[in-house]
Amino acid sequence: MNRFSKEVINVGEMASGALLTVPVYRLKGDSSAPSVYIQANMHGAEVQGNAVVFQLLELLKNISVKGDVTLVPYANPVACNHKNGEYTLGRFDPITGVNWNRMYHFDPSIIKPFVRESIGKDDAIIAANFKQLMIDKIEQKLEHNAFGLTTGQRIAYQLQRLAHQADYVLDLHTGPISSKHLYCPEYAKASAQYFNIPHNILIPNTFDGALDEATFCPWWQLQEAFAELGIKYSISSKALNKESFTVELGSQEQIDLDAALEDAKSILCYLQHKGVIDAAQYQPQIMTRFACYLKDYKAYYSPMGGMVDYLAEFGKPLAAGKPLARILRMDNYGDGDPLHYVSLENEVLPILHFASASVNQGTELYKVFTHFFEL
Amino acid sequence: MNRFSKEVINVGEMASGALLTVPVYRLKGDSSAPSVYIQANMHGAEVQGNAVVFQLLELLKNISVKGDVTLVPYANPVACNHKNGEYTLGRFDPITGVNWNRMYHFDPSIIKPFVRESIGKDDAIIAANFKQLMIDKIEQKLEHNAFGLTTGQRIAYQLQRLAHQADYVLDLHTGPISSKHLYCPEYAKASAQYFNIPHNILIPNTFDGALDEATFCPWWQLQEAFAELGIKYSISSKALNKESFTVELGSQEQIDLDAALEDAKSILCYLQHKGVIDAAQYQPQIMTRFACYLKDYKAYYSPMGGMVDYLAEFGKPLAAGKPLARILRMDNYGDGDPLHYVSLENEVLPILHFASASVNQGTELYKVFTHFFEL
Amino acid sequence: MNRFSKEVINVGEMASGALLTVPVYRLKGDSSAPSVYIQANMHGAEVQGNAVVFQLLELLKNISVKGDVTLVPYANPVACNHKNGEYTLGRFDPITGVNWNRMYHFDPSIIKPFVRESIGKDDAIIAANFKQLMIDKIEQKLEHNAFGLTTGQRIAYQLQRLAHQADYVLDLHTGPISSKHLYCPEYAKASAQYFNIPHNILIPNTFDGALDEATFCPWWQLQEAFAELGIKYSISSKALNKESFTVELGSQEQIDLDAALEDAKSILCYLQHKGVIDAAQYQPQIMTRFACYLKDYKAYYSPMGGMVDYLAEFGKPLAAGKPLARILRMDNYGDGDPLHYVSLENEVLPILHFASASVNQGTELYKVFTHFFEL
Amino acid sequence: MNRFSKEVINVGEMASGALLTVPVYRLKGDSSAPSVYIQANMHGAEVQGNAVVFQLLELLKNISVKGDVTLVPYANPVACNHKNGEYTLGRFDPITGVNWNRMYHFDPSIIKPFVRESIGKDDAIIAANFKQLMIDKIEQKLEHNAFGLTTGQRIAYQLQRLAHQADYVLDLHTGPISSKHLYCPEYAKASAQYFNIPHNILIPNTFDGALDEATFCPWWQLQEAFAELGIKYSISSKALNKESFTVELGSQEQIDLDAALEDAKSILCYLQHKGVIDAAQYQPQIMTRFACYLKDYKAYYSPMGGMVDYLAEFGKPLAAGKPLARILRMDNYGDGDPLHYVSLENEVLPILHFASASVNQGTELYKVFTHFFEL
Repeated sequence: MNRFSKEVINVGEMASGALLTVPVYRLKGDSSAPSVYIQANMHGAEVQGNAVVFQLLELLKNISVKGDVTLVPYANPVACNHKNGEYTLGRFDPITGVNWNRMYHFDPSIIKPFVRESIGKDDAIIAANFKQLMIDKIEQKLEHNAFGLTTGQRIAYQLQRLAHQADYVLDLHTGPISSKHLYCPEYAKASAQYFNIPHNILIPNTFDGALDEATFCPWWQLQEAFAELGIKYSISSKALNKESFTVELGSQEQIDLDAALEDAKSILCYLQHKGVIDAAQYQPQIMTRFACYLKDYKAYYSPMGGMVDYLAEFGKPLAAGKPLARILRMDNYGDGDPLHYVSLENEVLPILHFASASVNQGTELYKVFTHFFEL
Repeated sequence: MNRFSKEVINVGEMASGALLTVPVYRLKGDSSAPSVYIQANMHGAEVQGNAVVFQLLELLKNISVKGDVTLVPYANPVACNHKNGEYTLGRFDPITGVNWNRMYHFDPSIIKPFVRESIGKDDAIIAANFKQLMIDKIEQKLEHNAFGLTTGQRIAYQLQRLAHQADYVLDLHTGPISSKHLYCPEYAKASAQYFNIPHNILIPNTFDGALDEATFCPWWQLQEAFAELGIKYSISSKALNKESFTVELGSQEQIDLDAALEDAKSILCYLQHKGVIDAAQYQPQIMTRFACYLKDYKAYYSPMGGMVDYLAEFGKPLAAGKPLARILRMDNYGDGDPLHYVSLENEVLPILHFASASVNQGTELYKVFTHFFEL
Repeated sequence: MNRFSKEVINVGEMASGALLTVPVYRLKGDSSAPSVYIQANMHGAEVQGNAVVFQLLELLKNISVKGDVTLVPYANPVACNHKNGEYTLGRFDPITGVNWNRMYHFDPSIIKPFVRESIGKDDAIIAANFKQLMIDKIEQKLEHNAFGLTTGQRIAYQLQRLAHQADYVLDLHTGPISSKHLYCPEYAKASAQYFNIPHNILIPNTFDGALDEATFCPWWQLQEAFAELGIKYSISSKALNKESFTVELGSQEQIDLDAALEDAKSILCYLQHKGVIDAAQYQPQIMTRFACYLKDYKAYYSPMGGMVDYLAEFGKPLAAGKPLARILRMDNYGDGDPLHYVSLENEVLPILHFASASVNQGTELYKVFTHFFEL
Repeated sequence: MNRFSKEVINVGEMASGALLTVPVYRLKGDSSAPSVYIQANMHGAEVQGNAVVFQLLELLKNISVKGDVTLVPYANPVACNHKNGEYTLGRFDPITGVNWNRMYHFDPSIIKPFVRESIGKDDAIIAANFKQLMIDKIEQKLEHNAFGLTTGQRIAYQLQRLAHQADYVLDLHTGPISSKHLYCPEYAKASAQYFNIPHNILIPNTFDGALDEATFCPWWQLQEAFAELGIKYSISSKALNKESFTVELGSQEQIDLDAALEDAKSILCYLQHKGVIDAAQYQPQIMTRFACYLKDYKAYYSPMGGMVDYLAEFGKPLAAGKPLARILRMDNYGDGDPLHYVSLENEVLPILHFASASVNQGTELYKVFTHFFEL
């Protein structure tokens, strides 16, 4: 049976001096095999990933693991303990409002100088050097800053330092009330089929502060910088295969250990495909996998304030003009229209909707795929 | 077709000067017939009652209505618009923490003097006088207070002034994640069977600030005060039949217009039985109705912090020792017990559970009937 | 130099499993001398008491201490770490809205049976037995509860268990924006002059869940129960001298170590008078001490929503009709009155005002002494 | 006496249907004279600007006004009414966390095509066309968006539509606990001396979503685009003189009508200099005005969690190594260091500090000028 080591890392302090700690589970593999880093619960209400980490730990005990595996539940101890009323206010720092998943670090200006120095070097050497460079940059950020770091940066950078060690990175999130979906970099499209996830968003090479981007953007831009010099250097090459995904497990504020077991198996299918584990029993399901490009993944903002009866089902194409929802406006009863049906002008694939029935004018009501296609 | 009048009342002001308004719908009936007052959404996240009011208005249009009907959706404009993150923080005043449904008024010291003056008077006169006395007391509170009223009192008292006009009062609420249940004063037990609600809590004659209590406690205590003098005077008597209920419609943060139609019909069954309407087609369903006394309606507080997979189903008796929930504690993985099953020592009937998977030690996990019985 | 022992007690758990801990500092004295328990920061934003505990620890190092001294800063680790925006949302449990200082325990039904058993016994024995009885009751609450305790009860009861060991109890709080004031039980009025605090509220024998009440009410009711039987038994007697105060140090959200030193000295004056310490250099200041009865300590609720320019100074009698504040209402500019002056019909002594300029209609604007007098 | 017109504009709806309204005050001037737009309270807790608008209205009544004046208090009705506990949670949308002052619109891609069309045209024509173009773009955003706008965009764009009409734009804000300071575009440095504000931040031509940037960036980039073609076209030229400032009035959560009168006069000095009014009595004070570039305006994040006694005074140069604050850590008492002094390695000018004594590791403790100089 495989044994995991456990380390508790300190990522911050509260006003009372209470330490903010995060448990890190490691299974040491063969350094020649590819490694994976998986974290959960960076957003406080998105707890299901912790249950998936639990099931992964249980499953990995008894299968052949080839590469290093690092698993981090409760990644954000501020967010996952911050209640306001009954719910967990965990999408942003309650003091500043900054989204916890927009605080990771990447400075593109490191690419060009690195490429200049690397010309003529061996692919594996370049990969090792670049990996080290990114780790050094994060450690510099963590340890050398006269003016300090924000609470969120300190948490994010310490997690990122762990993520940079691995070849594959999975950041486990959920939507508000949501179907399962996957954020996948365009170049890794082929890997999407190894997850049992029906909806896939193909994302470009632009860094906006999230962990998945902070992981793949540097390598992608590195490849592009070499390409500009006419040097072929591929992140999908055997020599260095780097991928990173944000896995949206469903709805927030819920723990379902049975569903978590299925999601853990889905992740093992991907790890089997990538050679992190050797367990042929984990094969992806045959299913229709829809996809769209990030630019076509649209938020629909409520055209009015009101109370919403959500009608559109997730994952079922919704024809143009068919209602997404009906909005109750009792204040209009008697002298106005108390019931409004809202719809879109084109066919869409509903992916998630807002977590509450009460919305202001301008609240994000639904997120939908437009111009979607089968993978 | 019946016509409703609409009045918009002003219940307060915000810092910007924005008025807090509440719409009031009235259907004028025959003053000799009994009247009803129904309000919804005193707690901000408990929105389904607004949909029930909508369906009641639609149904009442086309049936014979005998007594006055007053319907008040959006009863609390502060609470129903107060967001913190995606959810509505609506159980308590965000400034003071005081529960919005604990601010109604009743001063028991008015009973004894009133009884003394009433001896020998006719039942109907006594009823009319007492009704007027309660209305006067509320108006005094609203208009004569050198030191002012709290935000919540001003809202509650204005609604209470409307409620005191009616013979029957229904306050529409919901639980967090919840089955349908009814708070019913012990003396009105017989009326519980007219609602299509399977779970009933029988409440005693103690005033704790809620609207239902503020409505029935005065009349109940009046009856008791007469009884002490050996005078029979019954609130269930034809001369004055006063009842008040808190109707818990299910879960918060949800609008479901189809479910609301069913709940509206359930309320019409009660109004038909009470003679407020004349529509024999509304008859209660045959169903098993469970009940317990308020002292036996227990909250179970989490014995630990953790993330909860709620297992016990609502409305299904749960045997002693069977798990209510399992609590995930990933921080214990490897060097402790990551999964805890929690249960109770006696059979219970689960009614509702907490709205979030994340709980602190001491968070209210479940509310259950103990020593329950069939009505 | 006196040495303090330090113990860290565990008062709860968060969702992540993070422990809620409280540091307890103890200086062991002579058990024959009277003892004191002092806690700070039960309300999260009321942090200045921690600085006073710091200064007390520094001062007590070098003076003669006769009785046991127990000091507890950061008494409420949930409240003092709970931010919402820049401020600390610490007056109530963010999940339930219940005021953290209304969760202490006292069951008056224990008094009469205890008195019956105690008749004829020696005062000191009675005192010892009653003290033990209260400790037993709290431990029972903490350890034997099939349905559990709320988060706040678990914290409060554990602190109360410590407080019940002591003869004198001080609970350090602050107002929002506030002058220094003291809550003093009527029977201990004479002790108020030993604190350097100009404003004193004399409180009666009614238990409302606060620590000061939970400490003195049992003993006061015990004395009254004996008195009913014609037995003289005085809590101010040498044999058992029990006192408890809530000390309001000024404004919340502030740490001022210099002001804290002065407040620490003021507390030492009281402890010197009570014989807990032997340090004659600590003598109270000569100052005018105003007082009023709790029933005359009035909150004034804003008659309107608006933005407030607070005018009345704390501790200066304000003549009838003189303005407490002026309220800006820009929305009225041009077609109404943009500036409103609010005042009261009688002379008052302003003690504190609301922490923000923005108020709703019904927000507590000022708290003032009415019918006040010199102690 | 000058007469203001008042218009109440609708900027959104809440869940209950309650309208979000903003009052707009206009004084019509001579269209040949330069015009000004001034708004206040975009951030909910930053209320003092409303008092300044009040005093401006009072002062402008009785002086000679040449150009159009538009004044908008309570610019953000969601933010200024949103309480969490006693304070106003107004820096960001409580649902999304997005800063209310990062939602204004500017699309730089409009510049180059506009310049191409404008070559050879008259300066005044170009100015008029460009002004119209920006207004058209905002109206397009407001009226043609199949997927809708966020709550904050709808508010911001409607205010921006008003701001784009004016030559000069002032956005009135405050810091948390803060000195008076001014955000001034580098090219308008000379105008800073017309305000009675001792601290000035010189900001570059980068758009980050704030109103001041949304106003001057387009014109500045327009000038640069012409310059690239060798065409001289100056925003400081008489033909089109465009300036925009964020005026930080001091601390949040406070209304002080007397201080507001002084700040109103300071603004009139600027308007007199710009020819919007003709009132020579308003002349700026002689004072030392410090400035630094935005890149040198540094936030210092707390190196630890704790409770802070803020020591450094605003506006007084603080020598290298001198303490900004001391941080209390009672949990360290007895077995660690309970008091930490924090300082910086270079001389700084403290401008503002955090609003609460309780900070987490990484909370923004102070903001300071580095490399500052006299204007």
